[in-house]
Amino acid sequence: MYPVISISRQFGSGGHAIGQLVAQRLSIPFFDKEIVEECSAESGFSKDVIEEQGEQVNRANKWFDLSSSAGGYFQSAQDEIFLAQRHVILEHARKGPCVIVGRCSDYILSEENDSSFKYLNVLIHANMDIRKENVHSRFPEIKEHDLVKFIEKKDKQRNAYYQYYTDRKWGLYSNYHIALDNGSLGEDKCVKIICDLAECMND
Amino acid sequence: MYPVISISRQFGSGGHAIGQLVAQRLSIPFFDKEIVEECSAESGFSKDVIEEQGEQVNRANKWFDLSSSAGGYFQSAQDEIFLAQRHVILEHARKGPCVIVGRCSDYILSEENDSSFKYLNVLIHANMDIRKENVHSRFPEIKEHDLVKFIEKKDKQRNAYYQYYTDRKWGLYSNYHIALDNGSLGEDKCVKIICDLAECMND
Repeated sequence: MYPVISISRQFGSGGHAIGQLVAQRLSIPFFDKEIVEECSAESGFSKDVIEEQGEQVNRANKWFDLSSSAGGYFQSAQDEIFLAQRHVILEHARKGPCVIVGRCSDYILSEENDSSFKYLNVLIHANMDIRKENVHSRFPEIKEHDLVKFIEKKDKQRNAYYQYYTDRKWGLYSNYHIALDNGSLGEDKCVKIICDLAECMND
Repeated sequence: MYPVISISRQFGSGGHAIGQLVAQRLSIPFFDKEIVEECSAESGFSKDVIEEQGEQVNRANKWFDLSSSAGGYFQSAQDEIFLAQRHVILEHARKGPCVIVGRCSDYILSEENDSSFKYLNVLIHANMDIRKENVHSRFPEIKEHDLVKFIEKKDKQRNAYYQYYTDRKWGLYSNYHIALDNGSLGEDKCVKIICDLAECMND
């Protein structure tokens, strides 16, 4: 048995960086945007489409799908992308220890009940000031007074996507083994706690 | 600056025991039921009344208070108990490092913004099977098929009390520096993580 670490994160909370540092320290693979490329190869959808639809519900598409389904079963492009991402995530989890960021990986790993690995579901969050700083350094073109709106919109899109594919509310403490306030604790402590827990999971 | 650790816990999740072990390991005082005695001495209410009303909203009392207020300001017995508990909690926090369980202490410490201490807000949770086991060993008189109902009722009462006095929803990840699944991680790991964090807070 080996650990597969899923990092769920608020947009701008620094969860991606924490996941990367955990993977580096444990010398295990890290998957975030990397999943997009593999999913593109698997599904045939372009990377742009997957990046756009791989973590947010696209309402326009959903309406289109509904009208096209003519009352029957219809698998939307977004559903196909979700299934391809799920397949890629589970393939990596079955290969060996790794860190996977977002994309409903907490739900996918917990639902699979695969005895070859132990999953560790981590939630990273931070207060709005810290998130604004992080998002500003990543998207300097966004004006100061638009930052909160931008962050809240991203949260809403990700939460809607999560709820749509998992039937769970995003961020419920009961879905995570550990939830960490990166804004108060800081990156070093978050990384250490996750690495220590992961190291205990090897047997 | 020294750490004041607030432990919020789901009923039956083992948060009380974790708090006790953290206090023992750090050699600092521990307050849970101890607050009831001090609060009784301070407020004049009996320990029984405080135990009954000190962490759950008593709807019958609230109706009585409303009818008695005749449209004006009326401080209920429960309000007085809340204020006495708040006072006792803040007095301990100002004296030195300690562990405090429940009683809205996470909210009380975060609202106070007192620069003499640093507060660490911890949430402990566990899945229902573990909680049933814990509650069964504490209340062996409760029949197996009544356990879930009993636990859910306690949750509801505590959540309503918390929401009434804090205007916050209980269990929101953003209110805690760290949330731990005691059912999956186990007591030893939870205690170690909290102690390590607390030790970093001394300066």
